[in-house]
Amino acid sequence: MKPSIPKGTRDFSPVEMARRNYIFDTIRGVFRLFGYRQIETPSMENLSTLMGKYGEEGDKLLFKIQNSGDYMNGVSDEELLSRNSLKLAAKFCEKGLRYDLTVPFARFVVMHREELQFPFKRFQIQPVWRADRPQKGRYREFYQCDADVVGSDSLLYEIELIQMIDMVFSRFGVRVAIKLNNRKILAGIAESIGQADKIVDITVAIDKLDKIGLDGVNAELAEKGLPEDAIDRLQPIIKLTGSNAEKLDVIAKVLEGSEVGQKGVEECRFILSGAEKLGLKNELELDLTLARGLNYYTGAIFEVKALDVEIGSISGGGRYDNLTGIFGMPGVSGVGISFGADRIYDVLTQLDLYPKEAQSGVKVLFLNLGSDEAAFCMEQLARLRAAGIASEIYPDAAKMKKQMSYANAGAIPFVAIVGSDELAQGKVTLKNMETGEQSLVDAADLADKLA
Amino acid sequence: MKPSIPKGTRDFSPVEMARRNYIFDTIRGVFRLFGYRQIETPSMENLSTLMGKYGEEGDKLLFKIQNSGDYMNGVSDEELLSRNSLKLAAKFCEKGLRYDLTVPFARFVVMHREELQFPFKRFQIQPVWRADRPQKGRYREFYQCDADVVGSDSLLYEIELIQMIDMVFSRFGVRVAIKLNNRKILAGIAESIGQADKIVDITVAIDKLDKIGLDGVNAELAEKGLPEDAIDRLQPIIKLTGSNAEKLDVIAKVLEGSEVGQKGVEECRFILSGAEKLGLKNELELDLTLARGLNYYTGAIFEVKALDVEIGSISGGGRYDNLTGIFGMPGVSGVGISFGADRIYDVLTQLDLYPKEAQSGVKVLFLNLGSDEAAFCMEQLARLRAAGIASEIYPDAAKMKKQMSYANAGAIPFVAIVGSDELAQGKVTLKNMETGEQSLVDAADLADKLA
Repeated sequence: MKPSIPKGTRDFSPVEMARRNYIFDTIRGVFRLFGYRQIETPSMENLSTLMGKYGEEGDKLLFKIQNSGDYMNGVSDEELLSRNSLKLAAKFCEKGLRYDLTVPFARFVVMHREELQFPFKRFQIQPVWRADRPQKGRYREFYQCDADVVGSDSLLYEIELIQMIDMVFSRFGVRVAIKLNNRKILAGIAESIGQADKIVDITVAIDKLDKIGLDGVNAELAEKGLPEDAIDRLQPIIKLTGSNAEKLDVIAKVLEGSEVGQKGVEECRFILSGAEKLGLKNELELDLTLARGLNYYTGAIFEVKALDVEIGSISGGGRYDNLTGIFGMPGVSGVGISFGADRIYDVLTQLDLYPKEAQSGVKVLFLNLGSDEAAFCMEQLARLRAAGIASEIYPDAAKMKKQMSYANAGAIPFVAIVGSDELAQGKVTLKNMETGEQSLVDAADLADKLA
Repeated sequence: MKPSIPKGTRDFSPVEMARRNYIFDTIRGVFRLFGYRQIETPSMENLSTLMGKYGEEGDKLLFKIQNSGDYMNGVSDEELLSRNSLKLAAKFCEKGLRYDLTVPFARFVVMHREELQFPFKRFQIQPVWRADRPQKGRYREFYQCDADVVGSDSLLYEIELIQMIDMVFSRFGVRVAIKLNNRKILAGIAESIGQADKIVDITVAIDKLDKIGLDGVNAELAEKGLPEDAIDRLQPIIKLTGSNAEKLDVIAKVLEGSEVGQKGVEECRFILSGAEKLGLKNELELDLTLARGLNYYTGAIFEVKALDVEIGSISGGGRYDNLTGIFGMPGVSGVGISFGADRIYDVLTQLDLYPKEAQSGVKVLFLNLGSDEAAFCMEQLARLRAAGIASEIYPDAAKMKKQMSYANAGAIPFVAIVGSDELAQGKVTLKNMETGEQSLVDAADLADKLA
């Protein structure tokens, strides 16, 4: 009888919504400032669009929508009784819920290629769904905030995306480290130690340095079949320290013989010097252990860590070269970033960084002391609202205490009182709920007082 | 191979998004001005929450989400082979997509009753999904924009909701007729002609007056078993004309013997006179043929028609007395309105009412004439963006024509040109794309010029 919601999903209260809107508005504002334009795609995509794009595990985590009507038509008795749930799902269901914003974006670009002007800079802020096991901080429905540009391989975009990350977090007041790497450097390293075919194993292992330590990384490399001398030659790179320029100089030496590696170093130099010259507010750090586990990155890789809160990465992204290839449109380079709204929410909450405006709504509540007084209040409300001041009236002449507790619960900063005296004089008693201060105000001056 | 999206769903391009955001922002702004606070509920609800709430037809139109994992476990061979798709759906699926915002809101209020302060004024702007047959103007995924207040039966809220409708459409610049009726008047009419038990049939028939005409309505009434003399006695009410006050006077006479009818007349009088006194910009009309086919309304009923475009109702709502009763919390009165974003979109498009700001994004594009020039431009861009001016640079030193066509396609009003001359002088040539006018501007003055 008691109603509930599906596990891993959430209701958002007015206070939570105000905070979430502050986060989305801030990110959206920065996206727009840099010329990214919003699109939206449907919540449901054809399963043919989604399946096979997120690996075998991903296919299982897709929420599938049952066909309407007689979805069992055309399925033989044998098939039914086989109880092969994955295979039958493909018969019962044609549609699935969006798993991320990247694949739908690629589908969008291919479908609308004739109408789009390239380079196409888009942002998208929409929920995604994953049938993951719910746990603390992991939900089955959550928002992604992505900005990508496709149709250009210019590194100016990498610089701009770093500026955008920097601006978003300085607007939030959160100190972060922006980490940069380049897939071409990783490829060059694999090549230079004679293990070009092992690049995926190497990057996946190195990516875990933070979590499992140097010994853990080396053990995993050995397990993946890397010879001892190759692991030895990796050590100076994994343990690399110093300024960005110093790191790059060391790496450039190591990668002298690797064309792709040299290209990676050159890209990093351009991006780092370009971004630094423009004056970032946060630190930008070359981190060769950063791989983000995502095999589709082909150039720059970004990741952002909060400095004052213990939490996973709160933003990340990179350059990819063939996003739209899966839908038959090869050769389109792109680069993008994504902000993790739920983690940012936790960071801002922990650091208590929400501005006051993000918390309150209504500026003034008119108390209701009777029908004649209320009618007068309604006139004042119409004037305040026309002046853009959010305001309301308590609906009945209830007990004072009840009306005041309504104002308190809503964190309404002012209360306006119109009793018979005020009514006779055309005035309003305005009470500041924080200081307790009261003053008698001409009704005509109320909007000015509150603005 | 060619990617597509599920029928009845839509991609929204940047231009469409800008327009849709203008619509949502306007509605949201008015909701906030009147003290309504935003909530969001999950896209998926338990099917036990949704089933049986929208009638038999509604149950069929729910999008059901297949359970993850072995959803066929525990279903016997016999059940499987019965191919009873509706019954098996209940076994395969525990969750469904939100069908409207009303039932999830009721579920929200009941679940969070301890944390909420009543009266609770909430608004909600989220998509809903219906497995309806797609057709022109009818989609399987579309947004609803609802504002409701629950926990009070004060008629001041009816007046405020009318003000909100009036304000939303005057901000849009759309002339509308706001129609008002009252379920109690309809009940009184049914009672006074001796057909109290036929109130649903009567209101459903009368509601169709616009579509099927007076003869059609009378034929339907006869078909539903209404005796001829009862139909005769309905005629003056169906054909009622005059000012709101005149209509009310006639009705009050007819309903003299009906308590509920008199109550309805009284409510209408209070709402009409209260709203009219506050100075509406649009006409407010008592319309006794308005029933909105929805049986859960118990008091005021609202509906809004655009005056200058041939289209169905673009907003509507009413008073209900037992929304949360289905979830075990009886006796909570509420009243609300809903705006139809898709129809409003069509109206604004047909009347060409989108403000210019809702269409364009970036204020200035820097052309790219080479790497040194671009580096200088990047510095200017950082300054412009810090000043809040949306701006971008073309990513490569491509042909002038290509760069200019990018500016045109994005409807970017200014182009900034930095060649070797400008670079040497620290200046920028600013071109107004509408007038063709060009001027040489100090880089330091650029933000002021564009602001």
